[in-house]
Amino acid sequence: MREDGRQLDQLRETTIETNFTKHPEGSVLITVGDTKVICNASVEKKVPPFLKGEGKGWITAEYAMLPRATAQRNIRESSKGKVAGRTMEIQRLIGRALRAVIDLEKLGERTIWVDCDVIQADGGTRTAAITGAFVATTMACARLIDENLIDEMPITNMLAATSVGIDDEDQVLLDLCYEEDSQADVDLNMVMTDEGKFVEIQGTGEEATFSHDQLNDMLKLGTDGITSLFELQRNALGDDANLIKG
Amino acid sequence: MREDGRQLDQLRETTIETNFTKHPEGSVLITVGDTKVICNASVEKKVPPFLKGEGKGWITAEYAMLPRATAQRNIRESSKGKVAGRTMEIQRLIGRALRAVIDLEKLGERTIWVDCDVIQADGGTRTAAITGAFVATTMACARLIDENLIDEMPITNMLAATSVGIDDEDQVLLDLCYEEDSQADVDLNMVMTDEGKFVEIQGTGEEATFSHDQLNDMLKLGTDGITSLFELQRNALGDDANLIKG
Amino acid sequence: MREDGRQLDQLRETTIETNFTKHPEGSVLITVGDTKVICNASVEKKVPPFLKGEGKGWITAEYAMLPRATAQRNIRESSKGKVAGRTMEIQRLIGRALRAVIDLEKLGERTIWVDCDVIQADGGTRTAAITGAFVATTMACARLIDENLIDEMPITNMLAATSVGIDDEDQVLLDLCYEEDSQADVDLNMVMTDEGKFVEIQGTGEEATFSHDQLNDMLKLGTDGITSLFELQRNALGDDANLIKG
Amino acid sequence: MREDGRQLDQLRETTIETNFTKHPEGSVLITVGDTKVICNASVEKKVPPFLKGEGKGWITAEYAMLPRATAQRNIRESSKGKVAGRTMEIQRLIGRALRAVIDLEKLGERTIWVDCDVIQADGGTRTAAITGAFVATTMACARLIDENLIDEMPITNMLAATSVGIDDEDQVLLDLCYEEDSQADVDLNMVMTDEGKFVEIQGTGEEATFSHDQLNDMLKLGTDGITSLFELQRNALGDDANLIKG
Amino acid sequence: MREDGRQLDQLRETTIETNFTKHPEGSVLITVGDTKVICNASVEKKVPPFLKGEGKGWITAEYAMLPRATAQRNIRESSKGKVAGRTMEIQRLIGRALRAVIDLEKLGERTIWVDCDVIQADGGTRTAAITGAFVATTMACARLIDENLIDEMPITNMLAATSVGIDDEDQVLLDLCYEEDSQADVDLNMVMTDEGKFVEIQGTGEEATFSHDQLNDMLKLGTDGITSLFELQRNALGDDANLIKG
Amino acid sequence: MREDGRQLDQLRETTIETNFTKHPEGSVLITVGDTKVICNASVEKKVPPFLKGEGKGWITAEYAMLPRATAQRNIRESSKGKVAGRTMEIQRLIGRALRAVIDLEKLGERTIWVDCDVIQADGGTRTAAITGAFVATTMACARLIDENLIDEMPITNMLAATSVGIDDEDQVLLDLCYEEDSQADVDLNMVMTDEGKFVEIQGTGEEATFSHDQLNDMLKLGTDGITSLFELQRNALGDDANLIKG
Repeated sequence: MREDGRQLDQLRETTIETNFTKHPEGSVLITVGDTKVICNASVEKKVPPFLKGEGKGWITAEYAMLPRATAQRNIRESSKGKVAGRTMEIQRLIGRALRAVIDLEKLGERTIWVDCDVIQADGGTRTAAITGAFVATTMACARLIDENLIDEMPITNMLAATSVGIDDEDQVLLDLCYEEDSQADVDLNMVMTDEGKFVEIQGTGEEATFSHDQLNDMLKLGTDGITSLFELQRNALGDDANLIKG
Repeated sequence: MREDGRQLDQLRETTIETNFTKHPEGSVLITVGDTKVICNASVEKKVPPFLKGEGKGWITAEYAMLPRATAQRNIRESSKGKVAGRTMEIQRLIGRALRAVIDLEKLGERTIWVDCDVIQADGGTRTAAITGAFVATTMACARLIDENLIDEMPITNMLAATSVGIDDEDQVLLDLCYEEDSQADVDLNMVMTDEGKFVEIQGTGEEATFSHDQLNDMLKLGTDGITSLFELQRNALGDDANLIKG
Repeated sequence: MREDGRQLDQLRETTIETNFTKHPEGSVLITVGDTKVICNASVEKKVPPFLKGEGKGWITAEYAMLPRATAQRNIRESSKGKVAGRTMEIQRLIGRALRAVIDLEKLGERTIWVDCDVIQADGGTRTAAITGAFVATTMACARLIDENLIDEMPITNMLAATSVGIDDEDQVLLDLCYEEDSQADVDLNMVMTDEGKFVEIQGTGEEATFSHDQLNDMLKLGTDGITSLFELQRNALGDDANLIKG
Repeated sequence: MREDGRQLDQLRETTIETNFTKHPEGSVLITVGDTKVICNASVEKKVPPFLKGEGKGWITAEYAMLPRATAQRNIRESSKGKVAGRTMEIQRLIGRALRAVIDLEKLGERTIWVDCDVIQADGGTRTAAITGAFVATTMACARLIDENLIDEMPITNMLAATSVGIDDEDQVLLDLCYEEDSQADVDLNMVMTDEGKFVEIQGTGEEATFSHDQLNDMLKLGTDGITSLFELQRNALGDDANLIKG
Repeated sequence: MREDGRQLDQLRETTIETNFTKHPEGSVLITVGDTKVICNASVEKKVPPFLKGEGKGWITAEYAMLPRATAQRNIRESSKGKVAGRTMEIQRLIGRALRAVIDLEKLGERTIWVDCDVIQADGGTRTAAITGAFVATTMACARLIDENLIDEMPITNMLAATSVGIDDEDQVLLDLCYEEDSQADVDLNMVMTDEGKFVEIQGTGEEATFSHDQLNDMLKLGTDGITSLFELQRNALGDDANLIKG
Repeated sequence: MREDGRQLDQLRETTIETNFTKHPEGSVLITVGDTKVICNASVEKKVPPFLKGEGKGWITAEYAMLPRATAQRNIRESSKGKVAGRTMEIQRLIGRALRAVIDLEKLGERTIWVDCDVIQADGGTRTAAITGAFVATTMACARLIDENLIDEMPITNMLAATSVGIDDEDQVLLDLCYEEDSQADVDLNMVMTDEGKFVEIQGTGEEATFSHDQLNDMLKLGTDGITSLFELQRNALGDDANLIKG
């Protein structure tokens, strides 16, 4: 039915490989179809100035693409000397989403930096990054417990994300690849917890508009998709998943 | 009931002053409570490189605040030498929203720059900017018709925006001022057309989450609020409003 | 006689509106003909590193234009990532001028930031900015006295500025509008105190030169013009003007 | 004998995985011990300004590290807004080395961009990058032949690189890992062709010096090491290796 | 009488060495007391975009200091990544001054870049730069005539500059060294032609003010000083000086 | 035999003028043929953050060219807002070389900044800079002893540098001028101590390669050349040279 043979309500083949590189406290390679993102969580024993002495921690994210993650090579942001608006928007979204499921007081005066680096892009990089970043962050927190640096898991809930869209035949599609995304009339990114609550929804009519009914259809389809992602995250996390009370 | 005496479903006092400055093709000062934004639309007779020779136009927005638009003075972005992520996110949103209600082919090979400069901030600056930017853009287009530079109105629909939120007593509030916004658990920005369709919805749980039911309540309240804004825009535009077929 | 019907020795219609925005300690909209500048004075309870522990304060200015303050839209300095030479020159001039009439020891360890933002430009923006900045700064200082934060008025004299020029018929003109300024052979900016002393004079032959006699004619005309501005400033300041011993 | 059990003259376990990502014309993951570098070659149908109309091509390299490729997280160069001196030095070296074995006239008016992104670092990232970049570049050129865009292989020789050093017991070591590199007195990077000629040698006494005899010992050991790398490159390239006349 | 034994109306020992470096079309080392500035004029066969096709040329200046030109080392502007306001102000002044004595149409479609690099600073660097830059520019123009690239000398008049000031005993001083400049109440930079006309005057009360009479005294003293500089310039230029009709 | 009449093994005329400018602790103008570099050593009573409290000092170098040091004018790095890769490479090399012959503990908690500014370039600027920087640094250290700020000379050995190359007739040349350098097949920069040890060697085949035998020939020739430079340095330093134990 869809270009790549998927059903309308079918996620792309998704895998989460843990311990992808050796240095980070949490390291994950998430693969969603042809989209591949390295998510590394680093723990730093200090907090940004605005939190100094507050007895609580911080979590923040950075997002980037390798220059040839895409069909056409992009100029490196370091060469241009500035970070694009799209990049900033995405890394702000990832950081905000993670902060919804972490108890910063339990983290203590530490910062977790989550680096999401896209090595191959085929649509849905920001939602893949959130789903992977959650696993990397949880691993980093589990290690803090393991090393007796904190007592309790600061992660309060599972968190995952996907995209949904409406194509030009008014069909509602789950988990858009790049080709579908660039042709869609409407594009909705959703971030949810495993309690079925929304953390973030961002719906955009791309030179088009959408009704309240269409929105509800998309939200329903996306909710089902995200529910499957939690299962994959739990498998990747193994025992660490049990530390989350959620 | 609310801090400033408003009902839960009541917009702040909103005014739209046209021809606020003399140079721009469209110039508006929009006042929403204590939030004041100058929205200037400038028409340039060229298009960005990626559109050269395509026979169609472009519309883009820039957003900024005076350093002392807020309670604490902020460092100028020109002094810092870079544009903040928040600024980029907002100007991308304004541009995207306007592109949903403009027929770029009817505009011809022209760029409309919409500058939204906040001179006083009290919450809701991005939605006020969209509501004002729509009026400034429509005025600039009407002037193109007036000067026989284009034949038909490129604006296809009215466009306005507001914010809705949920406070810590689970009440749904329309049009949050800064104080309410900084205490809200959930914050939803909505951009709609006068056909009742969504152009953009961005809902964020600020270290909190929200259910599908709560989302629906917010969307309903916001839809009512935006409907009142269309009336104000039509009054401000006068005869120019009739050029829009919508 | 002149394009806009003024006499050679006539200032443009000038108004000073106080409390233009609500957040700053001193806020003024100065209008000189079609030139409009928002001047906001912000008080910060700290000083730059080179003054730390000296028991005295600092005053500094920043100047900017809205992109469409002018007939052609200008690119934002924040987008370009750097501040133009003209901007730096003007903001250095404004700061230097204000420092000539303020007793920094009476200010205590505080910095006053004076933001001059041109919302509409028609020549003479830098001199209008100085005249308005003086009023905003005086208001901010009066408020410090009012709140018992300082004992004595740090402002020692009234300060105002205007421009004078020589046109291609060798006529000496007061307070040039943009059209006149761009055609003048010589352009002189003057900043004076109400004791009739100069704080700054900057005379430039624009691809032309001028004699000592011509300079004296210009200085005489400018002195008369500035004398009228002090009256407007006193009216705008009301009782606060009386705090200045000068 | 060495920390990781290697002989003094033994390379680390080295593998070259081709087609690591799908978009680039040539894509390689090279692994040298715990050092892992993605080398992507992109072909662009234009040349830099200084070569326009010369009928010949260009090859250039960029080098970067993921923030957590190392034991301590590094700040992204895009966030800092500038590229570090070390990065520039390395990417200039890689580009210069590749230009020694490519006939730019046979390439035609094309630029090959070689992006070397270190995803895990354990010493020797610049030499690993050169060895991998050569394979990615050869693959990209083979593809140009395959698609009949050029007639002849522009690559004239095989090219590989390694490091050699002298430790504090005056032992000469091949292929230093990070631990060894940071303790070595002397560090020598060598780039050679399969004809046994040097393309680049860079020897540095790290707060130490070295004699001509010691240099000769190092060069001999490095030459042997690089000879083994050519074999690995040929295996990775398969038939494409035969296109090189060398 | 003065710190360095000079009379109030005495210039510092001033020398102008031509052909200081070999590459520039005009190269001068000007020494004014302990202030030493290299002034190099470079001719480029193109004009800035705003002059393209106008059949006339342009002249522009850049100014910089070696980091240790001063008593305390300053950070390089290239390291800071931005040009200071003071630097911009000075290079704008130098360029503007030169444009007053050059007929840009006679120059043809060429740009003259005048680089003024201070290698040792002891006050008065901007006026020394103007005096030296005039000589370097004239030499570059003479060379254009010599090589038959232009027919007539574009330089219309001699141009030189000095500073004058008022010390805390109300004495008027010519040509201030650093020590005097930092203690002066008033500082006036003057640029004049050999017809005795002003090109630029910039008088600043440094946290002080000055009367019209004091201004006249300073202008008279400065005029005398500049008159001596023309003699030195003529000697340095030799026959080239005769090409100026003035 | 060579363009400028030199023998293959002959250095260019080289002079070292000390106390070239008055402010720096050590100031040198080194002239190597037509290459002229000002080397200024500045002592600062603090160390970079990574050395704070370690009881030892630091030495670092900066390198720049005047815009018209070369045949074609170059854009200033401060105007471009970034430092070129070539510049960074050279200043890293100079700093590294100097650190090989200085005992940072004897320097105490001080930083020596060595600024190498090329005022005229004709090839070999980086090696001339090292040779001159060594003299300036030694003078600055001698002054610290003289002022009783340190007890012992931190400089442990003499240090100088030159370049060697191979031309297209396979001749080995000492001390290449710009013309020779741009035509050479191979270019080798060497930095040595007066004990005949290498500190740094950097050999590059410029779109060419070189054999081990050719490398040895170049190293021999360069060693002879550098030996002559030590004599010049000792003469320039006078008694200060005796403070170095070597």
